[in-house]
Amino acid sequence: MSDDWFHLLNTVSIAFFAISGALVAYEEEVDSFGVIVLAVITAVGGGTLRDVLLDQPIFWIDKPDYLYSTYGAIIVTVILIRLNSGISNTLMIGFDAFGLALYNVIGIEKALINETGMAVAITLGTVTAIFGGLMRDVIARKVPLVMRCELYATACIAGGLVYAGMLYAGAPYLWCILASLVTTVSLRLGALKWGWRVPIFKKDIPE
Amino acid sequence: MSDDWFHLLNTVSIAFFAISGALVAYEEEVDSFGVIVLAVITAVGGGTLRDVLLDQPIFWIDKPDYLYSTYGAIIVTVILIRLNSGISNTLMIGFDAFGLALYNVIGIEKALINETGMAVAITLGTVTAIFGGLMRDVIARKVPLVMRCELYATACIAGGLVYAGMLYAGAPYLWCILASLVTTVSLRLGALKWGWRVPIFKKDIPE
Amino acid sequence: MSDDWFHLLNTVSIAFFAISGALVAYEEEVDSFGVIVLAVITAVGGGTLRDVLLDQPIFWIDKPDYLYSTYGAIIVTVILIRLNSGISNTLMIGFDAFGLALYNVIGIEKALINETGMAVAITLGTVTAIFGGLMRDVIARKVPLVMRCELYATACIAGGLVYAGMLYAGAPYLWCILASLVTTVSLRLGALKWGWRVPIFKKDIPE
Repeated sequence: MSDDWFHLLNTVSIAFFAISGALVAYEEEVDSFGVIVLAVITAVGGGTLRDVLLDQPIFWIDKPDYLYSTYGAIIVTVILIRLNSGISNTLMIGFDAFGLALYNVIGIEKALINETGMAVAITLGTVTAIFGGLMRDVIARKVPLVMRCELYATACIAGGLVYAGMLYAGAPYLWCILASLVTTVSLRLGALKWGWRVPIFKKDIPE
Repeated sequence: MSDDWFHLLNTVSIAFFAISGALVAYEEEVDSFGVIVLAVITAVGGGTLRDVLLDQPIFWIDKPDYLYSTYGAIIVTVILIRLNSGISNTLMIGFDAFGLALYNVIGIEKALINETGMAVAITLGTVTAIFGGLMRDVIARKVPLVMRCELYATACIAGGLVYAGMLYAGAPYLWCILASLVTTVSLRLGALKWGWRVPIFKKDIPE
Repeated sequence: MSDDWFHLLNTVSIAFFAISGALVAYEEEVDSFGVIVLAVITAVGGGTLRDVLLDQPIFWIDKPDYLYSTYGAIIVTVILIRLNSGISNTLMIGFDAFGLALYNVIGIEKALINETGMAVAITLGTVTAIFGGLMRDVIARKVPLVMRCELYATACIAGGLVYAGMLYAGAPYLWCILASLVTTVSLRLGALKWGWRVPIFKKDIPE
């Protein structure tokens, strides 16, 4: 993946998570600059963990542009919320889904560039995609999205497997990335809309 | 900032957060050495994150003195609580405020020494100042102080901006540090006493 | 400690924590691959923190075998739970106790190899032993085991002190490790069975 693409995707995914963080802050009645802190942690949390684990320079310390994009996304979100107070929870989950898919594929890419194996890359993609939203939900004392039944981690892992499959099949980078994004987002949103599940435990045997 | 000053401020801020952690442990009826774990995580959590993000040696691994100060502060706090069982929550919030202000300015300083820009330094100062207390509150299952309305993150960011403003104006280091500390502590304690707020959302438009 | 022993103990401790994570996921009715995420975070969380703090390559990125062991343990646990739906909470606490003891001694060993002092090593052992289970409980919104009264951190610290004492007395490595493991596990399980406590606060003075 060229640096420009990487930069663009990273900026978009950070903005999506920043928006989701600001929406949660609004819902939970945080006020003052606590909103900014929650949104910043959501936006850069996963990527920070990724860079720490890969022993790379932290992306937002290395290139402060990412921080400016985050602040920009937060300010725009706050203004929109003030203009339009009927923002729904659905919107938050939508932004979270796109951020999740992007972060997942960026995590896999960055792991592979740093010469990890594919199993490590898929694990790292999933964990870093989930991490920012997980911190957002833990700090806001909500049930983390990953703990609910609607294909959250599953969508990341599936996106990772699609990426790996297409890469081994020799598809060009951009196609792998697009296929992975489409897989993750459509599984996640489909699960929310039609209640798709992958039951791992079957609790109801006794009845 | 000379190394001696850095060492002194760091030790004091760690002690303040250690005390706040021990007080929360007392309130939440933790007992046995869980008290020590909660206090240690509160005390060194923020600084550990700071050093990890800046890719510096972790301060308490590099210089074990910091760990001894932490244990000392915890032991003294436990003894005082045993002697005087009517410790109030106000005291915890006071120690937290001083720890917050100190950690904020130390974070900014250490970021600038490592040649980050000012926006990164202020973000890092705020995040690392908040982090120890955030982990304390999450582990103890309390509403994190940063999620309440009383100028918590705001006080850190304001302290960072004052520091940056005075530094650009050419003031000597020690003055910048002092002005930042006074700003953060007085905003934080003033907000608690007089209910100061910076309303970012205006929820009551419809009424 | 030879590399082989290190590898073996590490694999066992990861498997124990992975099992405890999968059991908590079952209890809390997480489903889909959220189970895997919770179990993976529990299993590798503490060791990841340890390696980040010591500025070493993260063990599961460096040697993907650890990741395969984790996934293997999770799959076996899930199959066993499906076959046998009456799994009790006691089992989870038992696996957690063994994982705790092993992680503790591995943390101390790895710190000493990286030339920290003994106080730092014992602190690092305790914090990294606790960290995976702490994240598990925070994500699953349970009261963290370390916050309860049943000698959790205490068992780690005691195991660390026994290790240090025997090492200074000149005992061979394997004996130090075994003595530390036996101390931690028996204190932890004894506290659960017989209600042992180390009261640090004496709240009932007034009565």
